[in-house]
Order: sequence, then structure tokens, then C-alpha cells
Amino acid sequence: MVKFTEAACIGGGVIGGAWAARFVLAGIDTKIFDPHPEAQRLVSEVMANAERAYEMLTQAPLPAKGTLSFSKSLEEAVQGAQWIQESVPESLDVKRRVLNQIDAAADPQALIGSSTSGLMPTELQRDMKHPERMFVAHPYNPVYLLPLAELVGGKKTSRSALEDAKAKLATVGMTGLIIKKEIDAFVGDRLLEAFWREALWLIKDGICDTETLDNVIRYSFGLRWAQMGLFETYRIAGGEAGMRDFLSKYGPSLTWPWTKLTDVVDLDDELVEKIAAQSDAQSGQRGIRELERIRDQNLVGIMHALKAGDEGRGWGAGKLLADFESHLRKTAPRADVTPSQQPLKLLEVKVPAAWIDYNGHMTEYRYTQCFADACDALLLLIGADADYVQGGHSYYTVESHVRLLGEAKLGDALYVEAQLLPSDGKKVHAFMSLHRASDGRLLSTYESLMLHVSSSEGRSVAPLPEIMAILQPLLDAHANLPAPDGAGRSVGAGKR
Amino acid sequence: MVKFTEAACIGGGVIGGAWAARFVLAGIDTKIFDPHPEAQRLVSEVMANAERAYEMLTQAPLPAKGTLSFSKSLEEAVQGAQWIQESVPESLDVKRRVLNQIDAAADPQALIGSSTSGLMPTELQRDMKHPERMFVAHPYNPVYLLPLAELVGGKKTSRSALEDAKAKLATVGMTGLIIKKEIDAFVGDRLLEAFWREALWLIKDGICDTETLDNVIRYSFGLRWAQMGLFETYRIAGGEAGMRDFLSKYGPSLTWPWTKLTDVVDLDDELVEKIAAQSDAQSGQRGIRELERIRDQNLVGIMHALKAGDEGRGWGAGKLLADFESHLRKTAPRADVTPSQQPLKLLEVKVPAAWIDYNGHMTEYRYTQCFADACDALLLLIGADADYVQGGHSYYTVESHVRLLGEAKLGDALYVEAQLLPSDGKKVHAFMSLHRASDGRLLSTYESLMLHVSSSEGRSVAPLPEIMAILQPLLDAHANLPAPDGAGRSVGAGKR
Repeated sequence: MVKFTEAACIGGGVIGGAWAARFVLAGIDTKIFDPHPEAQRLVSEVMANAERAYEMLTQAPLPAKGTLSFSKSLEEAVQGAQWIQESVPESLDVKRRVLNQIDAAADPQALIGSSTSGLMPTELQRDMKHPERMFVAHPYNPVYLLPLAELVGGKKTSRSALEDAKAKLATVGMTGLIIKKEIDAFVGDRLLEAFWREALWLIKDGICDTETLDNVIRYSFGLRWAQMGLFETYRIAGGEAGMRDFLSKYGPSLTWPWTKLTDVVDLDDELVEKIAAQSDAQSGQRGIRELERIRDQNLVGIMHALKAGDEGRGWGAGKLLADFESHLRKTAPRADVTPSQQPLKLLEVKVPAAWIDYNGHMTEYRYTQCFADACDALLLLIGADADYVQGGHSYYTVESHVRLLGEAKLGDALYVEAQLLPSDGKKVHAFMSLHRASDGRLLSTYESLMLHVSSSEGRSVAPLPEIMAILQPLLDAHANLPAPDGAGRSVGAGKR
Repeated sequence: MVKFTEAACIGGGVIGGAWAARFVLAGIDTKIFDPHPEAQRLVSEVMANAERAYEMLTQAPLPAKGTLSFSKSLEEAVQGAQWIQESVPESLDVKRRVLNQIDAAADPQALIGSSTSGLMPTELQRDMKHPERMFVAHPYNPVYLLPLAELVGGKKTSRSALEDAKAKLATVGMTGLIIKKEIDAFVGDRLLEAFWREALWLIKDGICDTETLDNVIRYSFGLRWAQMGLFETYRIAGGEAGMRDFLSKYGPSLTWPWTKLTDVVDLDDELVEKIAAQSDAQSGQRGIRELERIRDQNLVGIMHALKAGDEGRGWGAGKLLADFESHLRKTAPRADVTPSQQPLKLLEVKVPAAWIDYNGHMTEYRYTQCFADACDALLLLIGADADYVQGGHSYYTVESHVRLLGEAKLGDALYVEAQLLPSDGKKVHAFMSLHRASDGRLLSTYESLMLHVSSSEGRSVAPLPEIMAILQPLLDAHANLPAPDGAGRSVGAGKR
């Protein structure tokens, strides 16, 4: 297990603040140092965005948040941190000075990452006393959602520091891709810069406006690149003939006059004004906060879609999300299963955009989804977890009854409570209720019957003793509760 | 209403075949001319991919497929077509010859689109007799899923032809973006070419391998570009300070030595082999067909996620999909509601990857989703459609009971049948069964109670007479059917 419990962020702007949000939401205590007078406000805004996104992002339980604090000095901030992330302005001199200061004050074992998007780590670490633990960890905005950090070592960086960084990033839901050789701007920003230069020419020359250019991207290769990138996409385009054949066809066009990149565009006032005016026309009817919310909801939705990819095994960023959830589940503290004569609180969830139907309410089957997720939580609680399923036993729901009594709306925080009805464990008969958190209002009830089955025998069998050891006391504790209102109901009972 | 009922595809490769699939699946009769001996096999493979994807793509009913036929000559193929799409090899001479031949044989009113990814329409239309209806309609692979066609007119192209093309594309689920000025490679391929050149340098110089480069894209800006493109993304990055401020910061870096694009990479045998070998290591464990399936499932999932974007109004390619579904619903023929003493067949659906749980089966709440969709189909059948809801009336499900009797797996074709139980229309009491199409096996049953409500009065009221005029005969026809097995059941009935 990687020990990663304390972090420091030097610089708390959009990037540094979002690093802090990632860390805190993954349960890591984080100290920020940023002398900017508005730093606290800015970080709190980023944190609010990140929290809203995370409520919808993972289906696994997040750990208790780490503490977030602002330090009075850089030296105070880095004390005890296992990872210190530098996100100060993009100037070699400024960054060098700050990194040297971090280097002098931090534990010599602590990792030091720089958020630079272009400067070479060999240059940055030049004057450090312990440069072997310093590297570039270049993230992408919004840092709390996009899972990539390009890890680039300088001449003095040790391989073990990069490997350690990669392992620590996995515990906050990111993947560190180690770049083989350092160059200015690394891999992502090299690609982006080439793209950006061409885009500027297209606008300057009046070939299209910014909205058309954005639409060209998001209606075509943007959809491809969200899941497969460049080379795997072209591998498919090559078809059965293969990648070699595909490449041989594309050689000649490299000398065609198809880009203006051999010339540098002059981003003068006129072009700035042209782009800004077009961008206002395209997006100006929405504020930045609204665009951020839309972006984050889309990113969450796309990652959820990719998590279902490759027949449920997860694909691309969705695979990374699945891996993060698996990490969260493994490291989550066991829920409290002290039997009591109280309903079990099983699930807290916030209604995401994808759950809303054309009436503006949470659509019918999402209620069932909440209750099914609550059943999974109940099973986890009694020890019927992924390992138990792997071992050949599982509970299957065979029958359920739902009443829809009120309406959940976008963003509503909901929770589920469950009462166990008399049953023998081979059958689990449960009654659940879904409430709105803000006022406790009952929105829906669910009654279900689950059967314990052996997958090898293909039939219902008694659960293993370790399950019953947790389940029986719960059944006993609930045995004397009154039957819930609505239990045993059939559809339309009393309607005539 | 745009009249678009017949199309011709000249050239039936990966691009031409996929255009044909788009047309046919949108109900348009399509003739293909391609002298290649393997053309029929290739088109049928593309068609199979497209059909598999479409079964999951739209929630609206697709029209009856158009007929697909292969013509013996170009002249025969273009007869009667309102749109002729040219997708022959990328050579100015070849394309000119074929376009002139189409021009001579086709109705002078027919639109002629070229799939060229780089040649200028003014060059292509030079020798045509009716050049005003000729334009570039540049699509993206896979054409049956990606909704973009760049529409580029030449000097002789009429504005009305471009507008007509845009309108016709909307009826097949695509959007035509009209590019203001023609240049080699238009907008998308200009951007791609710049990106591609930089990527080749990164691989040639050994900065990273193809897998790392693809991962950099799909874990970061690929996710952003699937939904917002370049300029809207940077608008957000600029934050409250705005686009002008953002741009002014990025001016200087345009002269930094951050790309090698001022030099042309030599795609020699050595580089081809390097890329091909890395691509084999990255993706070679999966065949092209498998990669295509994964890609298409991901694209469908991403578009579904985006359809839920902007609080359910749809965003980017998801908005286009929602618009397409709305078009399909409006143009769908009313279902047959001849009352008979048979259950109503309400829904056919194929289990997509996103519906599978960790056990490899369709997860519980997706059964409810199938039944809820069947309820929507029932409401559509009796005339309670979107306009009816708009008018202030709607049916809400208030109670349901589900039994899970068998397991649906990935790709299973399913259908739902419904029997109406005695009720007065103000209440609709229905019993439904979900079957596997391959063997008719019963997998699940569902009993539900829907209430007819007035949204203005906030209470249950009788449906409008036009609804009862369709519903009452159905209720009467089902009145004498025996009560279905399982109707009126409560959870765990008979369990003790």
C-alpha cells in the first residue's frame, strides 16, 4: 500500500486549487500556500465545482475528506507532506526559486511535482539539493476530473521517484504517464500547440468562425479521441490491410501544402478581437460558471459511458475510473454493522442530469437503480462483496415492488433506508424507503426478495457462515420493528 | 418537409458503404455502383456494423429500412436519386471523370456530394454541366455514427444547394456545417494534418510511443473535445478574465520553438515500421472487427451521455442525436392500434454493454427501464405523446411490481408484450412480459399502475376524449383475456 496521507500545494490558482481538490476528496490532508489575497476564495470555488462533480463521478464510496488548510508560509505548508505540487506562474526564474525553497524545507524523501506545461525538468531542478525526487507532473484542466498527469523526469530525476509518483496518483484517481524523453511542452502540449496554430490561421483567414471550428471537432474526431486517441483510430481506418498499408498511403500528403504551420501567425489585436467576438457570439449567452457545470456534467457522463465500454470492463478514461472505484472500495473502512432497532442507512446519492426525463423529474427506472444500489450496499455490509461473488456465491433479486410517491429533481440529495423483514438469510426480504435529504420527504418505497445462490450448483443454497454471522443479528434486531406501511402490497391494491 | 427518399452512392468502400448504411437505416432507398469485385461483401460488413450500432443508438423508432441495391452501371444507379454521393479514390482526375458522368446521367435537380477529404470543389466541378448542385460533403469515419459532414461549395455552387443538403442531412441524423471559404482539406483535415505531423515527430524522435500518445489524448483533451471543441474549452480556461485576456497571454508562445512543423517529417520505411510495430504492441491483441465494435459502443455511449447534457436538453453531438430522434418520432407512422384479443407488442430492444453488471447479466434496473420504455410506447400508441404532455396532461407511473425470472445477456434481442387489466383510463393497469427474441423465453414480468394527471390542476383527472377513443376499445378487447400468471402478486407471496 502506497502511503499518501499528506500533500502540499504551492500556488492555489485554477490548477493548484484543483490539485488540492483532488487530494482532499481522496482523503488526503492538504496544505496550500499562496500569498495571493484572493487565493482562499478561488480555491473554495474550485473545491465547490469538484465536490459537485465527485458526487456524481464515482459509484464507490469516497473516503472522509482530508482537511484543507492555508499555510502562512511555504515552509509551514510542506512540513510532513509526501507530495508537494508546485503550480506557480509559468516563468523559469519564478519556478526555480520556488522549487529551491520547497527543496530546502521539505522532507528529502518527499516527491516534488511541477505543474509546468512547457519548461523542462532538467532546467527546473538545476539548483536543487535533492533533485532526484523532482519531476514534472503536468495535469489538464479541470484537474479534479481529467485523469492524466504527464510525468517527465529531468537528467537528475530517479526512476523510483517517477514510479512512486505513478503509484500515488493512482490513489487519487489519476494515471501518471511517464514520458521517455524531456522536450519543451512534453507530448500533450506539443500536439495542442500544433493544433492551436492551425486553428488560429483558419480563423484569421476567415475559412470558418470559432463556433463552426468547435463543432467540426466535437461532431467528429473529438468523439473518436475521447476513447481511442490518434493511432488506434487510424489503425481501424486502415482496416484489414493494416497499419503499415495505411501509413504508406499517407506519406505523400505530408509534403502537400495543407497547413500554414511553416509560417507563424501574428496574434495581433485584430485577430484577438476577431476570435473574442466570435467566441462571445458562440458562448457568450452562458456565464463561465454555467459552462463549467455543463462541461463537468458532460465529462462525468462521458467517463461513465466509457466505464461501460469493452463489455463492462471499462475503456480508456472509463477504465481508469473503474480502477479508482476499485481502489476506493478496497480502502473503504467497513461500514458499521452494529445491529440496532433502527432502519439501516444504505445509500446517499445526488440526482445527475442523465437521470432526468422529459418531464424534468427523475425517471422511473432510476428509482429502481437507487434501490438496487442500496441492495448492493446491504450485501457489502453483510460481507457478500466482490470476493464472495468471485468465490461462487451471490444474492440475486428475484422480485420487487416499487411505489412512486414524490418527485426527485436534478441535484436533489437522496438517501435510502432499509428494514429487514423476517427471512432466513437464504432469502433476504427487505423493505426500503427513498428520501429527499433536504426535508426528509419520502419519495419512494421498494420491497424486494433476494435469493442466495451457488453459481456452480445453479440453485439457491444457504449463505456461508461468515455472512450469517453478520446478517442474523441484523435480522434479529429488526424482527420486532412494526411492519412498514406498504409492505406486502400488490399493485393497485385497494384501487377498486 | 424535405423530400429525400432515394439516394445513390458511387463508390462503395468504407466511406461510400457507410453513407449507404446511413441512408438505408433512415428509410431511404439506396443504389450503389462500385465495379470492385468485393464491393458487395464490404458494404454488407459495414451495414452489419451500422445496424448493430443503430439498435443501441436511438430511443426513437427507426423507419422501415430503405432498400439497398447494387446497380450494374453508374447511369442506372443515379436514376431517380435526390442525392448522389461520390466516394471514389482521392484523385482529382478520377473524381472529375466520375462527377462529370454523374452530372450527365442524373436529374439536373439532384444534389451531388463528394466525400473528398482534401480536393477543392471548384476544381472538382470545373467541367460539369450543372455544377451549381455540386459540393463537398466531407464525412468522418464511421460515417454511420459520426454526425458531421463539412459542406463546402465551389465557385459555381449555389447557396440553395448547400441549404438543401443541410436539410436533407438532418433527416439522416447528420449535421452539415457550411464552410465559408474553400481551401485544401477544409477545416477538420487541416486541423488533423497539423496534429498528425506533430505526432509523427514525437514518435520519430522517441519522445513517447504510440500507446502513450493515444493515452495522453484520451485521458485529457480528447474528453474535452468530445463536447466543447477548442475555443469554448479555452474560453472556460480564461475564466472570469475572459477570452481576450486568455488570448493575450498565449500570443508569445506562438513564436516559441514548440513544434517541429516548420520541418517536414520523412515518413520513410524506418518510421513506418516503428509506428506499425508500436501500434501492434498497443492494439494487436484485438482484431479490427473487435476494435470497431468497441469503438462503436463507446461512440454510442458518449453520444447518449451528451444527450443527457445541459440538464437533459442535449449537448453537442448528443443534441444532434436528440434532434434526430425528434425527427424520427415526428415522421414515424402511427402504430397499428387495431384492438384484438392479443397482447400488444410494445418494444424491441437489444441489450447494450452499458446495461451489463459485474455478473455479466443485464442489471436489475434495466429491466425496469425496458418496461418503462414499453409504457412510453403504450402511451404513444394511445395518443398521449409529447404534444399531449405539452398540453398539460400526462400519465405517471405510481406503482409497479417486477419479477426477474431469467437472465438477459449482452446483445440479446428482447421484446415486451402488454396486456391491459380492467381499469378506467384515468387509471391504466397493465401487465407486461419481457421475452428473449431468439427463443421467446420469458425473462421478466412487470405489473404497473399509471395515473392520468393534469399538471395545471396537480391531480388525477380523466383523460381527454381522443385518448379514450383509442384506449377504450383496447381495454374492451383485453377485458376477456384470462388474468396473467403473476398479476396481483405481492413480493414473496407464498414464500413462507
